[in-house]
Amino acid sequence: MSESLIGVARPRIDAPDKVTGATRYAADGYVHGLLHARLVLSTEAHARIRGVEKDAALQLDGVVAVLTAADLPVVKSGTDRAAEPLARDEVVFAGQPVALVVAESEAAAEDGVEAVVVDYEPLPAVVDLEAAMTPGAPPARLSAEEAGGDLESIHAGVDKGEDDAEEEQLSANVLDSVTRGSGDVAAALEASDAVVSGTFRTPWTYQAYIEPQVSTAWLEPNGTLVVSTSTQGSFVTQNELFRAFGLDFDKIRVIAEPLGGAFGGKFALVEPLAAGAALALRRPVRVALTRTEDFQATNPASAQITELRIGGRKDGTLTGIEARMLVDRGSNAGWGVEGITSLLVAGPYRWEAFDLRGYGIQTNRFTFGAYRAPGAPTAAFALESLVDELAEELGVDPLELRLKNALVEGDTAVSGNPVPTFGAVEVLERIREHPLWARRDSLPEGEGLGLAAGYWPGGNEPAAAVCRVDSDGILTVITSAADMSGVNSGFQVIAAEAFGMPPDRVRVVTTDTASGPYAGASGGSKVTYTVGAAVLKAAEAAREKLLAAASQELEIAPDDLEVVEGVVRAKGAPDRSITVAELSRKALRFGGRYEPIEGHGGSAQTRGAPSVAAHLSHVRVDRETGEVELLRHVIAQDVGRALNPALVEGQMRGGATQGIGWALFEELAHDEDGRLLTGSFLDYAIPVAERVPPIDTLIVEVPAPDGPFGAKGIGEAPVVAAPAAVVNAVAAATGVRMRRLPMTPPRVWAALTGTEEPS
Amino acid sequence: MSESLIGVARPRIDAPDKVTGATRYAADGYVHGLLHARLVLSTEAHARIRGVEKDAALQLDGVVAVLTAADLPVVKSGTDRAAEPLARDEVVFAGQPVALVVAESEAAAEDGVEAVVVDYEPLPAVVDLEAAMTPGAPPARLSAEEAGGDLESIHAGVDKGEDDAEEEQLSANVLDSVTRGSGDVAAALEASDAVVSGTFRTPWTYQAYIEPQVSTAWLEPNGTLVVSTSTQGSFVTQNELFRAFGLDFDKIRVIAEPLGGAFGGKFALVEPLAAGAALALRRPVRVALTRTEDFQATNPASAQITELRIGGRKDGTLTGIEARMLVDRGSNAGWGVEGITSLLVAGPYRWEAFDLRGYGIQTNRFTFGAYRAPGAPTAAFALESLVDELAEELGVDPLELRLKNALVEGDTAVSGNPVPTFGAVEVLERIREHPLWARRDSLPEGEGLGLAAGYWPGGNEPAAAVCRVDSDGILTVITSAADMSGVNSGFQVIAAEAFGMPPDRVRVVTTDTASGPYAGASGGSKVTYTVGAAVLKAAEAAREKLLAAASQELEIAPDDLEVVEGVVRAKGAPDRSITVAELSRKALRFGGRYEPIEGHGGSAQTRGAPSVAAHLSHVRVDRETGEVELLRHVIAQDVGRALNPALVEGQMRGGATQGIGWALFEELAHDEDGRLLTGSFLDYAIPVAERVPPIDTLIVEVPAPDGPFGAKGIGEAPVVAAPAAVVNAVAAATGVRMRRLPMTPPRVWAALTGTEEPS
Repeated sequence: MSESLIGVARPRIDAPDKVTGATRYAADGYVHGLLHARLVLSTEAHARIRGVEKDAALQLDGVVAVLTAADLPVVKSGTDRAAEPLARDEVVFAGQPVALVVAESEAAAEDGVEAVVVDYEPLPAVVDLEAAMTPGAPPARLSAEEAGGDLESIHAGVDKGEDDAEEEQLSANVLDSVTRGSGDVAAALEASDAVVSGTFRTPWTYQAYIEPQVSTAWLEPNGTLVVSTSTQGSFVTQNELFRAFGLDFDKIRVIAEPLGGAFGGKFALVEPLAAGAALALRRPVRVALTRTEDFQATNPASAQITELRIGGRKDGTLTGIEARMLVDRGSNAGWGVEGITSLLVAGPYRWEAFDLRGYGIQTNRFTFGAYRAPGAPTAAFALESLVDELAEELGVDPLELRLKNALVEGDTAVSGNPVPTFGAVEVLERIREHPLWARRDSLPEGEGLGLAAGYWPGGNEPAAAVCRVDSDGILTVITSAADMSGVNSGFQVIAAEAFGMPPDRVRVVTTDTASGPYAGASGGSKVTYTVGAAVLKAAEAAREKLLAAASQELEIAPDDLEVVEGVVRAKGAPDRSITVAELSRKALRFGGRYEPIEGHGGSAQTRGAPSVAAHLSHVRVDRETGEVELLRHVIAQDVGRALNPALVEGQMRGGATQGIGWALFEELAHDEDGRLLTGSFLDYAIPVAERVPPIDTLIVEVPAPDGPFGAKGIGEAPVVAAPAAVVNAVAAATGVRMRRLPMTPPRVWAALTGTEEPS
Repeated sequence: MSESLIGVARPRIDAPDKVTGATRYAADGYVHGLLHARLVLSTEAHARIRGVEKDAALQLDGVVAVLTAADLPVVKSGTDRAAEPLARDEVVFAGQPVALVVAESEAAAEDGVEAVVVDYEPLPAVVDLEAAMTPGAPPARLSAEEAGGDLESIHAGVDKGEDDAEEEQLSANVLDSVTRGSGDVAAALEASDAVVSGTFRTPWTYQAYIEPQVSTAWLEPNGTLVVSTSTQGSFVTQNELFRAFGLDFDKIRVIAEPLGGAFGGKFALVEPLAAGAALALRRPVRVALTRTEDFQATNPASAQITELRIGGRKDGTLTGIEARMLVDRGSNAGWGVEGITSLLVAGPYRWEAFDLRGYGIQTNRFTFGAYRAPGAPTAAFALESLVDELAEELGVDPLELRLKNALVEGDTAVSGNPVPTFGAVEVLERIREHPLWARRDSLPEGEGLGLAAGYWPGGNEPAAAVCRVDSDGILTVITSAADMSGVNSGFQVIAAEAFGMPPDRVRVVTTDTASGPYAGASGGSKVTYTVGAAVLKAAEAAREKLLAAASQELEIAPDDLEVVEGVVRAKGAPDRSITVAELSRKALRFGGRYEPIEGHGGSAQTRGAPSVAAHLSHVRVDRETGEVELLRHVIAQDVGRALNPALVEGQMRGGATQGIGWALFEELAHDEDGRLLTGSFLDYAIPVAERVPPIDTLIVEVPAPDGPFGAKGIGEAPVVAAPAAVVNAVAAATGVRMRRLPMTPPRVWAALTGTEEPS
């Protein structure tokens, strides 16, 4: 037998095309007769639309049409973005698309947008989250709501919890509330040796993908609507368009083009605009957002306010936890993260009693969307801050406190479900072994170390895949999963190992809804776990065909054969052999006697595979300016099994870096009328390379029983506790606990000097 | 259980799009920056190319390039059309592509062609088939030949036989010769009660598809060569281009667009031109042949001369058969039909001794290609003519003579292989029962009835297919087989029956080489038999997934469930049920607990499934003009099982009609210098509707053991003996036996009057 291919670092298979510029992204394709659309965005956060004046725009050279809601052939009712790609009678956030100017060129479309005049009747803008939920608050939307969106289930990988039984006095802006409870929290806290509490605020944050959202739609002569798009999910987009426009299902073909980043933000947001315009005009239409449009009109992560209280005993046992979490849904009636954030706020720990509440509140800010581990960093920020404070109060080492209470397999989580295989203890132990941790009491003045842990439950979704040996002897893996964060490279090694091929003789093809095996959207840290499991079974099925053919060819029973690096050979007699390439040539021809060497695999895991990560952040804080300098960051993550450590480390570094952005830089800010102040990268800071410290990546492997070779989804876990670790490090360096993210220098300076924190 | 779906007449599923004009054929797509190519065709049948003067053409507005052989990045050596899309130094037929003029518009390309001057040094043109093979004949090609083409195996569904052991004195133009022999033929004929013989001539014939050959090629930014084309086989074309241009296999994607007819002629002929130009110019290039170009530059069926002698005894036993068959390959070094035609000339009969020889001879006419049942109609024309004559000489009823000697399962064919399940007896018996047969001795003066039988062995090729239930609850069948002669409609009913769906809830998708399950070219009467078998297995595999999910959902064991019209229900308790649509919705979503309802199936039949047909033709011959009027035509064909009788009858009618064309109208004629005289439908007659008589279709079902529900490939068999039946009818009507096809009025008149037959 050859060495296992699993666990060997390899370059991403999409890298050569990407670095040489050969990759064709969604904005790069051309379709004959293509029209370009540009959006007329609402300048009001909340208003009635009295009218849209199109004539001036229509008189411009090259402008083909000015489309408003009534012009799009939408058949679905409701207020989600697929049902309402353009505002109907009411705008509910500044930046909401009101009209589409469609023109022969992008420039003409842009001129057209300038010439469109929308007559608004302003309404009170609801921008304050706490005020929005109090009885008597003005409504953020006058028109009737329709609850339940189809995208909800894609993101919310967990049970939402019970609807609140207790009747609370709340405004109509509270669209949903969930409660999870067990035991008598008041009594548990009462009986604790220490109780700490705080209110934590996080802002709206932008996914900041490199590639703004873009989608092109056209009709084939046979009536098929083709949508070539930058999306995380081709089938989910097909479904959204199916419901939005009432076409036959197979008359919608969605092609997921190579992604220029997504991070949870690319789900059927611009596709309904492009598709609606193409259906209205019977010409190909591209909607390619500019960066400023993308900032204003898309679906960032929501602002959140978390009121949290926890207690513990001197023996290092956590007792009770009480949380009240306000989630800003913006205009999103369909779903919010109050369900999952109010579950994740309990962290990877055991509690004797808990009372966790979440509220989803509509406001006049954006449409809320998913963003890498939605709701989790906010929850970890609150919890991990208080866990550190509690450790101090109790006089317990903060790492030992976490370790002692860390959930292990068989525990019952606050969701009520048993905890599956879980690496919380292991990742904390790895941090404890790291040399940086030993330095925590010997750092220079102004420096501090912060520890935090957090997890992401990981999603499940049935999936299928095909493996096919071509007549050039290469094994082709075929899935419909959008290639995000290197999942195709994972498929390559899974198939190579299962089939018996060198990885460089395995290629991966992403196909589309017309003929591809089913895959859900890439997101929820589930692709490697679920689609990867299907790839594994497909490769095994193809291997069976291979062995059947080889058995006939070599006249050796299949059980006595092995496949090593693309060669089928007799066990113990390796010179009695035939190559995969030779067998495929014998199969794939007229008169061939062997079935094509192809296999199909399906998966439907029902067990979760949560990934947990612990972070250790080392900072220096400048007391004169309030500036936080990151010196080093360590992340230990349970990845199940690292199929390709280079990619796993990339995810860990990327997640930690994004978390650093949330900790220090990132905030979408509105003025008091709900107009966006931070509509460009000049106003919205993300961590540039020079602001990111060296990051140590410690891979911990606690194999997931149902994962391919033990692997699990790992994309979201590394971001969860990163901000909290930085927060805890700042506290260690300064003695000051920040309750609002990001920790900008003015805010830190205000906290250090005891002056009022800027909002 | 519901009624079987098999055997019910249904419209073709591609019909609505085709009749409403919605179908997008290969010439209908547009690619940005598309260039149009037009061919400079050789005006000489045989010449050296001294030079190609491009300058005048290049100076025309819109002309982008004039490409000659040296400009195309072909890496394959040899003289087949993929290795030599443009003539190198020597032209070997009038009409051979010498240069490509590529321009911004079709009109500019056409002007460019007019302006290109090719300087030829004429060489002796070899146009006489018998002269070509005699020692000392001038060679039809000076340059070295390379034997063996990759397309050979696609068409030649049978063993080619032995190379001739006896040394014959032959010219170098004889590229190949095959001999099959058994027993002492001379002795067998000597001992016969009657021996008849003749020499039979058939001309070059044109496939006359409605859609001239067309192919568009372009490069994706990542270097992938995409070829959107009118082809019978996407994978075979990919293979040809792979070898021709030496690209990575997966950097060639071939999309088989809906076919506007093919009949064997569309195999990688124009694709190398389009692909070569696109690779040379790095721009999209379309090669869309005009009808005249298509007549001149493609690959019709070859001319053939058959010298045949057979004997029989008075008891109605066939004794010996001796054949010498000269096949004109034109410029095709790679393959010819001498192998199969010299096998099929023995017909569906037992012989005591045989000596069958075939010669493949190069000439300066066309490139030889496949055409529905290649070599078979010619063979049947010769054999069935003589069988009728023999019956007369022996005083045996011609139908009884055929019946008595008809091959049955277990006999040994002249190929040496055992005869599989075979319906020759059954189809002859069906003809015997037809009322027209009873009238054979009571027809008016000038009328006659002709009987003939013939078969096509049917090809085998491994194939795969996928069945997938989509979230709209429809079962989607996915194959890579080009939809020719309604095969997709057959897949629909196969999948519907195997899965348990109404046919209108099954759709069929033809996908491409990038991600499709393997299928060989559509041709050789093998698609329903082989790909259909894979579809059947794929549907069964998907049904297993369906039952597994339903079993969990209904809490009933899979064995106790049945699937009826898209509903899974408990056997005996039909109200305990769930629809396929509901189950698919439960599977295809986040958190779903069931695998996607998808299945993959592969097939690799090793047993042949020959289809045999008997024809009865009723004609009236005008002795004054020599015109043959068809009054009625009857065809009885063993189709294994008629999946959809409407489609089967369509094939039977179409095949018979094409055979009538060969009998009466069709001939590609050259002048003595090898220049085509019949380059348009003004000069080349095909049977128009008013010349086609009522055709009775008698479906005979002798199920093929390995075919899906007993079905077999039926596309080729109905053409085989159709011309022979007409010939025999003319003989019955006039007493004159025609030895040359087509039986045009001048030829018939010459025969009737004993004057010299026009050539």
